[in-house]
Formats: sequence, C-alpha cells, structure tokens
Amino acid sequence: TFTNHVTQRVLNVDTMNPNVKRIEYAVRGPVVQRAVQIEKELKEGVKKSFTEVIKANIGDAHAMGQKPITFFRQVIALCVYPDLLEDKFPEDAKNRARRILQACGGGSLGAYSASSGIEVIRQDVAKYIEKRDSGIPSNPDDIYLSTGASDAIVTMLKLLTAGEGKTRTGVMIPIPQYPLYSAALAELAAVQISYYLDEDKCWSLDVGELRRAVKAAREHCNPRALCIINPGNPTGQVQNRQCIEDVIRFAAEEHLFLMADEVYQDNVYMEGCQFHSFKKVLFEMGPEYSSVVELASFHSTSKCYMGECGFRGGYMEVINMDPEVKLHLTKLVSVRLCPSIPGQALLDLVVNPPQPDEPSYATFIKERTANLHILSEKAKMTEQVLNTVPGIHCNPVQGAMYTFPRLTLPEKAINAAKEQEQAPDMFYCMKLLEEMGICLVPGSGFGQRDGTYHFRMTILPATEKLKIVLEKIREFHKRFTEEFS
Amino acid sequence: TFTNHVTQRVLNVDTMNPNVKRIEYAVRGPVVQRAVQIEKELKEGVKKSFTEVIKANIGDAHAMGQKPITFFRQVIALCVYPDLLEDKFPEDAKNRARRILQACGGGSLGAYSASSGIEVIRQDVAKYIEKRDSGIPSNPDDIYLSTGASDAIVTMLKLLTAGEGKTRTGVMIPIPQYPLYSAALAELAAVQISYYLDEDKCWSLDVGELRRAVKAAREHCNPRALCIINPGNPTGQVQNRQCIEDVIRFAAEEHLFLMADEVYQDNVYMEGCQFHSFKKVLFEMGPEYSSVVELASFHSTSKCYMGECGFRGGYMEVINMDPEVKLHLTKLVSVRLCPSIPGQALLDLVVNPPQPDEPSYATFIKERTANLHILSEKAKMTEQVLNTVPGIHCNPVQGAMYTFPRLTLPEKAINAAKEQEQAPDMFYCMKLLEEMGICLVPGSGFGQRDGTYHFRMTILPATEKLKIVLEKIREFHKRFTEEFS
Ligand SMILES: Cc1ncc(COP(=O)(O)O)c(C=O)c1O
Ligand SMILES: Cc1ncc(COP(=O)(O)O)c(C=O)c1O
Repeated sequence: TFTNHVTQRVLNVDTMNPNVKRIEYAVRGPVVQRAVQIEKELKEGVKKSFTEVIKANIGDAHAMGQKPITFFRQVIALCVYPDLLEDKFPEDAKNRARRILQACGGGSLGAYSASSGIEVIRQDVAKYIEKRDSGIPSNPDDIYLSTGASDAIVTMLKLLTAGEGKTRTGVMIPIPQYPLYSAALAELAAVQISYYLDEDKCWSLDVGELRRAVKAAREHCNPRALCIINPGNPTGQVQNRQCIEDVIRFAAEEHLFLMADEVYQDNVYMEGCQFHSFKKVLFEMGPEYSSVVELASFHSTSKCYMGECGFRGGYMEVINMDPEVKLHLTKLVSVRLCPSIPGQALLDLVVNPPQPDEPSYATFIKERTANLHILSEKAKMTEQVLNTVPGIHCNPVQGAMYTFPRLTLPEKAINAAKEQEQAPDMFYCMKLLEEMGICLVPGSGFGQRDGTYHFRMTILPATEKLKIVLEKIREFHKRFTEEFS
Repeated sequence: TFTNHVTQRVLNVDTMNPNVKRIEYAVRGPVVQRAVQIEKELKEGVKKSFTEVIKANIGDAHAMGQKPITFFRQVIALCVYPDLLEDKFPEDAKNRARRILQACGGGSLGAYSASSGIEVIRQDVAKYIEKRDSGIPSNPDDIYLSTGASDAIVTMLKLLTAGEGKTRTGVMIPIPQYPLYSAALAELAAVQISYYLDEDKCWSLDVGELRRAVKAAREHCNPRALCIINPGNPTGQVQNRQCIEDVIRFAAEEHLFLMADEVYQDNVYMEGCQFHSFKKVLFEMGPEYSSVVELASFHSTSKCYMGECGFRGGYMEVINMDPEVKLHLTKLVSVRLCPSIPGQALLDLVVNPPQPDEPSYATFIKERTANLHILSEKAKMTEQVLNTVPGIHCNPVQGAMYTFPRLTLPEKAINAAKEQEQAPDMFYCMKLLEEMGICLVPGSGFGQRDGTYHFRMTILPATEKLKIVLEKIREFHKRFTEEFS
C-alpha cells in the first residue's frame, strides 16, 4: 500500500534537482514580486504615499511605453492574416510578407520550420552580418535562429559543459553580469569563473583581470569559455576596439571558446563610443586568429531600437565550430522543434529593414532614429541626475539600457540589513519600493565586489516618468542616509 | 603561446557535453535530412521517378495544407497591428484582441510577460480546464504557459532529475514513444525506464507491464515519474477510462509523479473512444487519490483542429505540487524570461474560442468541425488501405495524427540492412524515400520490441496526396518484399 509515504511528496525540495535549487535569479526576484503585490494592493484601494509602482527593473521597452516599429508590425500582421494582402498596406510591407510566407511550410506561420530556422531568414541574417561587418563573409549555415538570445546562450553553454571535479567545464563571466549566465551555469552544474569589470574605469574589461581569474580557476576546474556582454548589461559600458583585440588574443592564448553577447549592438549613446562586433575584429586580426578562435555571437529582437521582447526572436552565429559538433547542435535544437515563427519573421525584418528606395523607408528611419535618440537623452539624464546625489556614483551610460550606480550606505544600514539576513542593497531597494513605489534590482543580484553596493535601473521609463524616478531616488537616498546615520 | 593546441578545437566531439552527444532524434533524423537534399536535387533538375517529396514525417498540419482557423488569425493580426481595430473585422475578434492587449505590458505583444505567462490567459486556461473536466476546479496559479508543450515537458523532467548512480531519477516512458522524452532524459542524464505498449491490443497500456518495468528499474535507479501520452504518438491509441484509473492507482502505489501529455486531446476519431483527462479521472477517484497524486498535464496549440505549431504556444497544469518546488519552478522559467506572447495569445483563443452568441461562432464551428472530420476520414482510410498490403499490419488510428504499422521484412532485407549498419526499418524507409519520394520515420526512432519493425506515418497529407502516399507504400512494399525474397 502507499499509505506509508503519503505524507511526503515525490517531488519536494529535498528530492528536486539540486542544480535548479541553486539557481538565483534577481531580475524577477523578491523586489519584483513585492512590486507586483503592491500593485495589487493599490488596485484594491490600499493607501500609499504613491499611486503607481514604476518598474525600472527589466529591459522591456514596450512595457515602458515605447511604440513598435510600424513596418515590422504591418508585415507580421500580413503574415498572420494573409487576407490583408488585399487591403491598403504599403507595397514593400506586402512584398516582405509574401516572401516570408513563401519560405514557411504550407505558406503559414503555423508550420514548424527547420530547427535552425527558416533558410531564407538565415540567409538574410548572414547578409545583415556581412553588411554590418564591412563585407566579412557570413555563412547561413553558421546561423542558428533562437527563441530570444536567452535560448541560444543556454544552448551554447550546454554544449560546452562536460567533465567532473577538476575537469568540469568552467565558464568566465563578467561581474556584474546579466544573471542568465550565472543561472544557466548553476543549472548545468558548470563552474562559474568570475572576472570583475573595473568600475573605476567605466566598467571596462581588463585583460590582466581575465588572466588572474583564469589562472585561479585552473586550480579547480577546466576553463573552456569566456563570455562577454558588449554593450554591457547591467553596466552600460561599450568596449573599445583595442580591448576586444586583447580579449581575442587572450582567448587564443588560453584556448577558450568565445561567447559574445551583442544584443545591445545598436544601443550606443556616448560620443566617441562605437560598437565593434567580435566577429569583425576577429577577422581583421588576420588568419592567425580568424582561422582558429571559436566564437559564438548572439543577437535578439528584444533590444536596440525595436524592443520586441515578446516575440522571442534571436539568432547566434558560430565561427570555427567543429562540423561534427554542429551536427550535434542541430540535433539538440531539433528536440524542441523550432523557434517561434512570428519571432523568426520579426527577426527577418530587423536584419532586412526597408531600403531607401522603398515606400516605408522614411517612416522606418524616423521611428528608429527617434527611439534611439530618446534612449540616448535618457542615458545622459540618468547619469547626470544620479551623480548630483551625494552617496551615489554613476558611470556614464555609454550603451545598452541600464545604469549600475554605486551606493555609499551608512554602517548602520548595513547592520540593519544583516539583522534581516538581507544583502544591504536588497534592504535598500525594498525600502525604496515600499516608500517610493520604485522598483529596481539590487546589485547583489548581478554580482559586485565585496563591500560595494549598487542597484540596476533601466533608462526605459518615459522621459517624464524617468525624471520622477530619478527625483524620488534622490529624495529617498537622502532620507535613507539620514535615517541610518 | 597557443601554437601547441591550434590543431585541436576547444569544442570538439571529445570535449563536448557527452549527454548531448548521446541524444538521438529521429523525427528530423537521416531520412528527413536526405529528403531535404532530394528536394534540392529535384529543384536543380535532377531526374527522379517522382516529381515531389511528400513528407509524412512530422505532425505539422499547416505544412501539409491545413488552413488556419480564421478567427484565431484575425485576433492575432489585430493584436500585432492594433491600427486594424479601426477596420472591418468581426466585433468579437476586436473585443478579444483588446482584452489580450490590455493584459500585455504597455498594451503590446512586444513586452515580456510574467514568466509563467499572462495572468488573464492563465485564468482563461483554468476556466477551459474546468469546463472540459465537468466543473472540477482549476487554479490559475497551477498553470504555467510554455513555448509549445515541449518546453513544459522538458522543464518538468528537469525539475524531477536528481541523485547519482542507483539513486539517479528514473522516468518511465512508453515504447514506442515521442522522442522528445528519450532525448530530454539523455540530455539530463536521467534514466529512461521503458514500458512497452501492447501492439496486439491496439497499443493499449497494461499495468502489469508498468509493474514489470518499475520493478526491474528499482534495481539500478530511483523511479520517480511516469509519462503517459494520450492520445498516443506515434501509436494513435486512445486510453480508456478504466486504464487511466489503473495507471493512477499504480502511480500512487509506486509513489510516482505523473506526467500526462495530452496535446492530442481533441484528436479522437474512433467511435466508442473518448478523451478522458488524467486530471478529471484523478479527481473522480476521490480525495484518497486526488489529494496525494502529483500530476503535471500538458497541452499545446500545435495539434488538435488548429495545428498552430509555429506559434509555439502551450501550457501545463500542475496538481499537488509542493509549494516550495513551485517557487523554484517559477524561478527556473524566469531565467528565459517568458514564452512567446503571440503564442500565449493564440493559446488564449484556443481555450476561449467564439461563443454561441458571438458573430464568429458559426464560422469557427464550421472550420473546426471540417478539420476534425477530414482528419477522422484520413485516419480510417490510412488504416484500411495499409491493412490491404500483405506484410503490413496496422492498428486502428483511434486518435492523434499517426499510424505506426508493423512491417514483415524478409530475412534478406534485414541482413542487407545490417551490412550497412542500419536498422532494418531505417533501410526500408531510406529506400522508400529514394524510390518513391515518400518521407516517413523508421520505427527504430521511437523504440519498438526487439525484432519488430515499423514506420511512423502522419495522416496529415491532403486526402488526394494521402491516397498517393498509401498507394506508393503498397507498391513499394510489394516490390521490396520481392526484391529481398
Ligand atoms: C545581455 C543580455 N543578453 C541576453 C538577453 C536575453 O534577451 P532575449 O532572450 O529576450 O533575447 C538579455 C535580456 O535582457 C540581455 O540583457
Ligand atoms: C506527444 C507529443 N507531445 C509534445 C509535442 C510537442 O509539441 P509542441 O512543442 O509543438 O507543443 C508533440 C509534437 O509533435 C507530441 O507529439
């Protein structure tokens, strides 16, 4: 009979996958969960000193009011409901929709595609990369479409993970990092090798620090991959060309597989900064490097000027990947059948937007420019205002969509946090949420040097709201500092 | 310097994840890859005895010409491009689109949702389940939306996997099975426990066989979950109520977590057969079972009458799941942010289709009925024609979208296959493809009793094409049998 074990579930915290248990994920952690509760309380009429929660915790442009690119949505609507091809839509939108539908099984977005993505779209991605990288060739067979960049990143980390004990795969990731990386490594039971970005030098990446980290790691694991996020999340820095060369040289010397997360490649705001793809720099360094260094780079429909997170579109390009491993990769992605077809279609538009001679070009350029311009303004405003607050220090937001300012917290606040078994910046962010209705993510969720405290804030709230957020942070920080002095 | 290891890649077949290497995935395996090549050859003008490859290898209705449900596509198009709300669309479609958009961040399909899915849609799913299960309550907090059912199935298997050696999680799966299961277990390095469906009894599930399998498995692993596919893929059977009760009793006795893959819940064709959800049967067995047996059941937008595979919509409902484990589950799915929003929206329409008093109802019912009717006709035709071929034996296609007929292969053919190091039914399917242009999947890709041979064929080709496929198989089988006699 089964009465002897009814009290215990088959699946409980003691029997569940221990790797999953170990995962930490702050972007949607306790602060965000509390924010959702507070929103419900406000709706139910609970009185607070604020009337809405402003969420600056996640890089979700549309959720913060950014409007979709008209052309993209027109083409997708035409693909979804092809009867609309008879209606009044720009001819280029119709042509694009027909071309995408022709590449779909049965001419429908409802068919599965090849697991690596629709061939025509992989060709368009390759052309986009070639153009972006001044003619350096890109092969559609090296392109794998994905369910957002997240999917491709996890897939690559999975492929790379092997060994046990001292031979277990180690993966170098920046600290602070985007927590997808630490979470995926925890899930795979791969070893996280942290290298620290240099806050005093605008969160730049120092190869000396990479060397220190890899050397220490070789004592206890097998370092096999190096992840770079450029432009940086949560830190907003843009890597210069020299630094990318140094990183590539380092990867070659240390025999590391490079993973370049370039989902913010259009999000560069600071004068003098420019996006350089790892692929381009690698090939410009000549065959000594370009014929040996293994590289996977990632892009997404979720960021840049379009911010189409919900469509879960993305791709990776793999360079110098072992052909047999590629077969295994194709097999691996086949298990889940294929990435979302609307997401693939949207990606196609991102890599193949309206051309100068097409009717939708002018509007497209206007919308894209406006979105990027506003982001750029907000990046500057965020840095400026936060740096006027005593006890907050903020590096320039060179790119991406975030700032990761450093907080000087009074000793008493740190102790109060410890009493509640909270990280001090979690304590800070929770109080900020409760008192001001502003939802940020504590720096501890991304990793930071011991004894330093930060929060991550997106620059995405609409300009007027962003002003309010910044003012409220100023007010709160002052009050918090006084309260705990 | 790095010259000493340039000859070897960081990532090669010796260093890659050994679990990934072990995965087998037949649905898109060698036969399908060769089919794609042949299609290219035909395009390039290579002469063959056929002019097109007919693919009956994958359950992809739209790819085989089934048309989307008008209402579903209208609503999604309205959501994608809300300017259309000003146009001539049925009012119910517009209302549905407005309701979905209101539930999206910033009123856009382009925002991320909560990781478990949009709340309103989870509520609609719960209502759908309640209605389907004659009022047995369903709680939206038990619903997790997913990227197709595949995603949710892999996630559950992941949660359940723990232990090492003899305590490693074992998962019972049917043989023949849908190869997502074996692939996911290989990837997770969980132990596959095969239980055989009874071909002689119409692929029914026998609890005695479950007992045999679990007993044998307890010698070398820790059996913790039991997967059921009902209606069955690749075997097309529909489980009766009594059998489901027996399975639930067995799971309770053996302390197993139940996973019920019910993606074909609307695909029941055979008179006297009916779909019974595991959830409903569990609750009708009373609290002795319904308060203890842990169950996850899965559904998808990909099958049934709509066949919207490309949208990657799906959900799972978890019953009696440990609340702490649920928190870990929510955290785990957060890492990849959220399922595709167009997929979530489409799922919402599946669970909340037009109602009798709404303008789109009549067309919706007409389309749904027609699609299911045609599938039902094709199920019957497939069984009838195949059973007229000497050496092919085919169970009735009671449900789902497949037949898995048994092949009597001449000894000489089996030897010829072995000489080529191929499974005999792989050898058969490859020849069928080369000679007839018909693409099927060999039974060996799904598992079968030793010494038996099968292929899986979908019933999805349009009726006229399906007739051709069946005739060609008849002709080929005769010729093949003669050639090797
Ligand atoms: C650095 C970085 N990489 C990857 C992603 C994943 O984005 P998605 O999966 O939506 O493409 C994000 C999202 O915020 C990100 O910031
Ligand atoms: C039994 C079964 N489960 C799950 C799936 C996964 O479907 P999807 O991920 O498209 O929902 C399929 C697809 O064929 C299937 O046959």
